[in-house]
Amino acid sequence: MVRWVKHMDLEPGMSVRDLVAEMGKSGVFSAGRVAKAVEIYREMLRARATIFMGVGGAVVPGGLRHVLASAIREGLVHAMVVTGANATHDLIEAFGGRHAQGDEFADDAELRRKRISRIYDVYVPQRAFEIFEEKIQPIFAKVFKGGSRMSSAELLRKIGLELKDKNSFLRAAAEKGVPVFCPAIADSILGLQAWLYSQEHDVTIDVLKDIKQIFELASGAEMAGAVLLGGGVPKNFIFQSMLLTPRSFDYAIQITMDRPEPGGLSGATLDEAKSWGKVAERAKTVTVIGDITVILPLMLASVLEKR
Amino acid sequence: MVRWVKHMDLEPGMSVRDLVAEMGKSGVFSAGRVAKAVEIYREMLRARATIFMGVGGAVVPGGLRHVLASAIREGLVHAMVVTGANATHDLIEAFGGRHAQGDEFADDAELRRKRISRIYDVYVPQRAFEIFEEKIQPIFAKVFKGGSRMSSAELLRKIGLELKDKNSFLRAAAEKGVPVFCPAIADSILGLQAWLYSQEHDVTIDVLKDIKQIFELASGAEMAGAVLLGGGVPKNFIFQSMLLTPRSFDYAIQITMDRPEPGGLSGATLDEAKSWGKVAERAKTVTVIGDITVILPLMLASVLEKR
Amino acid sequence: MVRWVKHMDLEPGMSVRDLVAEMGKSGVFSAGRVAKAVEIYREMLRARATIFMGVGGAVVPGGLRHVLASAIREGLVHAMVVTGANATHDLIEAFGGRHAQGDEFADDAELRRKRISRIYDVYVPQRAFEIFEEKIQPIFAKVFKGGSRMSSAELLRKIGLELKDKNSFLRAAAEKGVPVFCPAIADSILGLQAWLYSQEHDVTIDVLKDIKQIFELASGAEMAGAVLLGGGVPKNFIFQSMLLTPRSFDYAIQITMDRPEPGGLSGATLDEAKSWGKVAERAKTVTVIGDITVILPLMLASVLEKR
Amino acid sequence: MVRWVKHMDLEPGMSVRDLVAEMGKSGVFSAGRVAKAVEIYREMLRARATIFMGVGGAVVPGGLRHVLASAIREGLVHAMVVTGANATHDLIEAFGGRHAQGDEFADDAELRRKRISRIYDVYVPQRAFEIFEEKIQPIFAKVFKGGSRMSSAELLRKIGLELKDKNSFLRAAAEKGVPVFCPAIADSILGLQAWLYSQEHDVTIDVLKDIKQIFELASGAEMAGAVLLGGGVPKNFIFQSMLLTPRSFDYAIQITMDRPEPGGLSGATLDEAKSWGKVAERAKTVTVIGDITVILPLMLASVLEKR
Repeated sequence: MVRWVKHMDLEPGMSVRDLVAEMGKSGVFSAGRVAKAVEIYREMLRARATIFMGVGGAVVPGGLRHVLASAIREGLVHAMVVTGANATHDLIEAFGGRHAQGDEFADDAELRRKRISRIYDVYVPQRAFEIFEEKIQPIFAKVFKGGSRMSSAELLRKIGLELKDKNSFLRAAAEKGVPVFCPAIADSILGLQAWLYSQEHDVTIDVLKDIKQIFELASGAEMAGAVLLGGGVPKNFIFQSMLLTPRSFDYAIQITMDRPEPGGLSGATLDEAKSWGKVAERAKTVTVIGDITVILPLMLASVLEKR
Repeated sequence: MVRWVKHMDLEPGMSVRDLVAEMGKSGVFSAGRVAKAVEIYREMLRARATIFMGVGGAVVPGGLRHVLASAIREGLVHAMVVTGANATHDLIEAFGGRHAQGDEFADDAELRRKRISRIYDVYVPQRAFEIFEEKIQPIFAKVFKGGSRMSSAELLRKIGLELKDKNSFLRAAAEKGVPVFCPAIADSILGLQAWLYSQEHDVTIDVLKDIKQIFELASGAEMAGAVLLGGGVPKNFIFQSMLLTPRSFDYAIQITMDRPEPGGLSGATLDEAKSWGKVAERAKTVTVIGDITVILPLMLASVLEKR
Repeated sequence: MVRWVKHMDLEPGMSVRDLVAEMGKSGVFSAGRVAKAVEIYREMLRARATIFMGVGGAVVPGGLRHVLASAIREGLVHAMVVTGANATHDLIEAFGGRHAQGDEFADDAELRRKRISRIYDVYVPQRAFEIFEEKIQPIFAKVFKGGSRMSSAELLRKIGLELKDKNSFLRAAAEKGVPVFCPAIADSILGLQAWLYSQEHDVTIDVLKDIKQIFELASGAEMAGAVLLGGGVPKNFIFQSMLLTPRSFDYAIQITMDRPEPGGLSGATLDEAKSWGKVAERAKTVTVIGDITVILPLMLASVLEKR
Repeated sequence: MVRWVKHMDLEPGMSVRDLVAEMGKSGVFSAGRVAKAVEIYREMLRARATIFMGVGGAVVPGGLRHVLASAIREGLVHAMVVTGANATHDLIEAFGGRHAQGDEFADDAELRRKRISRIYDVYVPQRAFEIFEEKIQPIFAKVFKGGSRMSSAELLRKIGLELKDKNSFLRAAAEKGVPVFCPAIADSILGLQAWLYSQEHDVTIDVLKDIKQIFELASGAEMAGAVLLGGGVPKNFIFQSMLLTPRSFDYAIQITMDRPEPGGLSGATLDEAKSWGKVAERAKTVTVIGDITVILPLMLASVLEKR
């Protein structure tokens, strides 16, 4: 049966849900994929799948911190794997720091002299990292009392419980019991701070324990879904959680600007993951090529409405 | 004065306008640019600028045919430059042909045997091109009676007036008096059909005349804006229209997935166009990196509402 | 039979041919494709295929003007389809103008004031365009005497014969009898100049005639190959030349940085062209994702040696 | 003083060094950048800079294993940061496993049934991972005897010393005293194996210790250079090593296909790193947009020759 391309119609005042429905009518190119992603997300929720969200790239500096926190609170996410940078930037804001709108063509040497660090067109005042240090060290002192060796997920949960900022996704996750894994935590300013703390205290972050904890989640899930914001370690760590189980992901949604041809995992297709047994042969999957800051809100605003 | 990144908040049932407003609050990465594009579009309309829209890529097969037609009817576009393919695919539908949702991983040799042509994940039955030939040749016979040598814009206008399909952007443009230029018309199936017709009739398409016509529009505009869907000939032809005038574009919005580094015009920044005098030094410009089928509806649904 | 990835070995002083042979040993990712492109090119030459080269993007400003001219002289190319910009920039140099190494982060408004036009990191002094006008107008006066209506290929051939610069690819082509088609000539500064000339002389460029001429070449070829440098009109015009013949391309090599997902022809896979009958089911094809200025010299230096 | 674009000339039999010299003559687009990368690499070596190489993406499966090993042996690299996958795939080959040339359009469900895992167009038989397990577990038993808690760099050094395969880059590094850091080791099959081992032995990988070790290298370097093959954790970990020192990188070469616009670190410009103090204001830097399997051999073959 042929499914024709029905051309999209726009209306003034239309809702995001209606716009995504129009994209689904056309059903092709990236518009079709946004609609398919919404459909898969709804189906994952209906099937009560355990949803693993990977958060790579600069999602928090890019203005999506509340979106992550509310996705956790609304039950759209049940486990997270994040880069150290996204954890760090969530904490920066929880500690009162801010990100500013900047200019991607700025003179970086001049920014350096002004003590501003640049993330494409986002500015972070160096002062924010100083406050970060002032605030995180006492938290380390507190949380490492309960044990000098813990997984990144245990550490982030304990840190999350110390935060007062309701918009922090780390706090939302800690409150909701959603584990947040950060297996490459050493590769971040949060990791640098942990190392500084470890200079005078015999503590360590046991990333092998993270493997065990995510493996338990993966093998315990009756149905499992992956929502991958960018690639990198979060994508791989989520997928590899299935390698030691007889199971694989039943659903996968990927939003990325990376290409498959250079062979890196970040740009790899979701079909490729089937050859590894990470994604099930009959899994429902979709890759949307686009910027996370546009595609994620479009998708989640529609998912929220459609429930 | 610092503009902080305010994190986006999503609401169930929110309108597209509200979503774009949230993107504007964050103001960075592609989300910030979508919001800026809407702002510039509204300002162009308030300033009563003459808006030139370039339509490259596979916009019509991608489900945006009605969007183009209604943008013309709503007065959001005052001149268009299109690829021959977009004109051809508009006509295919006007003549009763259809595009179907397909599979980008299909076996193309098998599609060939089934007489289906593929445009990424869009299928076009070869039958549609046969109907196209049956219908366009009598139209050529009619429209070339009024003169055997005309510009591509004159030809497309005359063809547009022959169409009965209200959803055709060529008809909408012809009715509304919006010229549609197609300087590379020879590079399309519409061009092939014109050549077939020319085999037995002494007719020609005078693309130098298109230069004159767009130049007159460009030099007559008090304020001018460019909305570039993809690159290629449409982008360049719109920009070069300013080269022979003392003026330049006051506004420019570009939606593309091409990169600047290889040096081709399609991926070139809008700043580069300032060095040529195509875009004014103080012009308001924005490039959104993303798929046209997602970004254009998001932008126009918001523009429609905000007027 | 399994073909293993044999890891590349580098030697000081190794030739380009040897390097490409090492890439062929590994046989995967882009390195494998460069080696495959060389192999296909050699096979095309052995099979005495008619080789159509498409020249999109900024190939001439990017330093490949001699490479194009020598490819023509060495018999590596038998027909060309170029953008108007590549023809224009070849002529600029033939008339004594130059391109300069610039800075892609330059202040474009300042460049404008200095009368420098920018193409990514290439600068073109505006003076070069003035000289272009001074020199091309007398050539138009001469070449249009033999007929006031000609195809772009006829025009470029006549212009080529007027040039004294041996490094001009247009001259090399004219001398060698290699036709150079420019179906979107109106979309270029060469086209603007032709239009200026046409203001006082009743001349026209008959792009429908170009269709006829390339169709005759395509249908006359016993074996046919396409070498596509970038996409745009050159790629499509080469491929569509087969649409009116019962034949299709037996070989195709594509070098591009464009992606397939947005659906535009420039980034389309060569398999997609099989569904249209532009490329034969059993054709030997390869797409190399990379910058033309790196991939083309690497490929051609190896092709030259291996003959 | 203007530096003109001199067009490249190709000669049959030319050496890689000569080809890169021609690219340097043109000096623009990616060709110019390849030449500049060679120039910077030579200068780094002359200045006796400590060279940190980041190895992201699928460099080892892509056929560059010998290239990495010989770069270490030839003194072109003094510290490495790698993904767990590149370490794993080096070990797979050291243990007798192989990678095969595959098909990126293969049916992944069928590959799964054939027990083949796909990395774009590279195939890895599942059997290779079984051999990997058989071989790595006894090595763990041996190397963890000397201490149950070590950094990833200490672990990889000890593993490297156990290998007999001269083409292993881990062995080359261990022999040469070049540390290989793998801060995200938990995110790899090597990490999974380490976790399996840790199930019955009280061992851990102390990634905070890696921070200390790379920090000591970074602060001890009189001059420092970064050669970044892809992005991800290797790029960030190399750059962050400077954050705790008063110094910054004096040279940086980046080869990537990622884009800067989405804001992730992988695609970030090297200028951006200047705002963070990771790269010095006056550092010599270049980013080459291209596939590592093509650009790295082209660059290193030329560097090797020019010494």
